[in-house]
Amino acid sequence: MPYEPKLGMSIEDLDTPALLLDLDAFEHNIATMSRFFAERPAALRPHAKTHKCPRIALRQIEAGAIGITCAKVGEAEVLARAGIRDILIANQVVGPIKIDRLTDLALDCDVMVAVDDPANVDALSEGCRSKGASLRVLVEVDIGMERCGVLPGVPALELAQHISESPYLQFTGLMGYEGHLVTVPDPRDRATRVREAMALLERTVGLLHSHGLPVQIVSGGGTGTYDVTGALPFVTEVQAGSYVLMDSTYAQIRPEFEPSLTVLSTVISRPAPDRAIVDAGMKAMSKEFGIPQPLGLPGAATLSLSEEHARLSLGEASPARVRPGDRVRFLPSHCCTTVNLYDTLHVVQRGRLVDFWPVAARGRGQ
Amino acid sequence: MPYEPKLGMSIEDLDTPALLLDLDAFEHNIATMSRFFAERPAALRPHAKTHKCPRIALRQIEAGAIGITCAKVGEAEVLARAGIRDILIANQVVGPIKIDRLTDLALDCDVMVAVDDPANVDALSEGCRSKGASLRVLVEVDIGMERCGVLPGVPALELAQHISESPYLQFTGLMGYEGHLVTVPDPRDRATRVREAMALLERTVGLLHSHGLPVQIVSGGGTGTYDVTGALPFVTEVQAGSYVLMDSTYAQIRPEFEPSLTVLSTVISRPAPDRAIVDAGMKAMSKEFGIPQPLGLPGAATLSLSEEHARLSLGEASPARVRPGDRVRFLPSHCCTTVNLYDTLHVVQRGRLVDFWPVAARGRGQ
Repeated sequence: MPYEPKLGMSIEDLDTPALLLDLDAFEHNIATMSRFFAERPAALRPHAKTHKCPRIALRQIEAGAIGITCAKVGEAEVLARAGIRDILIANQVVGPIKIDRLTDLALDCDVMVAVDDPANVDALSEGCRSKGASLRVLVEVDIGMERCGVLPGVPALELAQHISESPYLQFTGLMGYEGHLVTVPDPRDRATRVREAMALLERTVGLLHSHGLPVQIVSGGGTGTYDVTGALPFVTEVQAGSYVLMDSTYAQIRPEFEPSLTVLSTVISRPAPDRAIVDAGMKAMSKEFGIPQPLGLPGAATLSLSEEHARLSLGEASPARVRPGDRVRFLPSHCCTTVNLYDTLHVVQRGRLVDFWPVAARGRGQ
Repeated sequence: MPYEPKLGMSIEDLDTPALLLDLDAFEHNIATMSRFFAERPAALRPHAKTHKCPRIALRQIEAGAIGITCAKVGEAEVLARAGIRDILIANQVVGPIKIDRLTDLALDCDVMVAVDDPANVDALSEGCRSKGASLRVLVEVDIGMERCGVLPGVPALELAQHISESPYLQFTGLMGYEGHLVTVPDPRDRATRVREAMALLERTVGLLHSHGLPVQIVSGGGTGTYDVTGALPFVTEVQAGSYVLMDSTYAQIRPEFEPSLTVLSTVISRPAPDRAIVDAGMKAMSKEFGIPQPLGLPGAATLSLSEEHARLSLGEASPARVRPGDRVRFLPSHCCTTVNLYDTLHVVQRGRLVDFWPVAARGRGQ
């Protein structure tokens, strides 16, 4: 390929569409989250589904995170190869292929996995037995999201007891994700509802303790709730992920973090005075949380995304200022699914390219 | 990695989420489209943005396609390396990096590109001059989609004349994509509106002829309009892409093609009698055209997709029949953006894995 982006290049000279990570904003976010957890008993185990990037995971650990959360065995494999030793797969790992891979991984590093089904516990136990592996297990409790998880209270107790009967599994604690509340707009309303949801987890911890089951880990929280969930005395770990990249959705409720992720595009057509077309569409930025908007073009707005194009109305922006070849940056509306479209993060600082970070776990959905 | 899918395996033994291509349905679609164009003056130049897969592109050419359409220079580079010799990039290629890559490509194979701006024409001409390359150029005409393109009539004529003045560019014809009409539900209404839109292109062809500019190629059409556009006497090429894979959106208006693309997932949780959670979410299937629905589970419906999960209500399906570990297949609602999430197509026939086809142009958005 003739084009090779080189360190030191101006952002303006990068080929597009390109995914940019602003290093200063990124470090601000890392430092802000570190300061929060430095003063609290709970620790940060950031979710790597957001960035799928071992370089970012290693930086998060360097800054105080106790380990990494991920969604998929394939992501955990990539993180383990990069040297991450303590990994929570915050999902059910089901079926012989996946359990074979999970137990291989458990021979190599410290893995935790979520469960919500006794037959799955038995399969995990048998998988560990056959390989001499050991696995830490969290019971996922449904605290109102109505996705996976057993109900709080007795169902969680019974599953924990079932796990504790396996000599190959270590019952380690509970996981409850208040994902249905992470973007409640009003902070007070959000805090109240998060505390109510997490109280279900607290009462379940009490129930397990009263039955002689120690609960070492209580895991929950996201970027929208880390300050509430992470301040609860019974919570030991928070899984926030998006804080490190941010997007327009979280920017509305989390001003303490700076958007570090943008998509760089090029104007490829100016077919009408009030219209510009750029080369970044749905394959360059996700839109399920809203259509990404352009930065630095006052009055301009994205009207629609098609597969390969965004269509901008220019509004008050002077048409003469926007020409084919000009660069336009967009703030994604959902960082996690946008990163998932790229193989490389172009790390930039003060307008220049300073590093390439592979999105090594992109496509590792299995 | 311990897991290696092997040819001959049952679909049920594949790790998930996995993108499946049913070979018989695929070949049916190839044959159906071939038959249509065998009898007509227009030819098929299928759009590779749908599949991003050189193996599919080569099969399309073997079955009679005269070349391939693509959206991006990066896709064209992948197709050229795979041996495709006649490629239309149905977009504006703008800026020095892209033009450098495009002209490199033009030294290696027959490339056509769309233009809608005289300054871009000058830059393409200078790029070709500096390398001794030659490039075929189509004027993109906006026939109502209001995306890129010059207006029909005099603006198209003027741009064509400008192209024809460059000794390094070959003015080859016109492109007009009736993308705003490809999913009009009623076939008669669709046909009427497509003919009206394409008439703008026909009158522009006449204008160019009357000014002594030969129009060799008139390119347009999609899967939703191929039968109307492809039957117009002045249209020489049709760019339909989705027909070969299909999805639930096109299935509603194109019963002559069979959905060949599905996403295979695994049930990872059965937290309530009427709820099942599978391991395929927004990172495994796109949802901008609707939430993908499960196949072969009467009464079941996808309630929502989150990043890594689909949440199913089971309705009349017997809860006992759906257990963790069971496989569930989904029909994507938009094949192009779903394929873009994967590196491999698992080619299946009568329930068994028969080939792997790399989605080699995935991520080649630049």
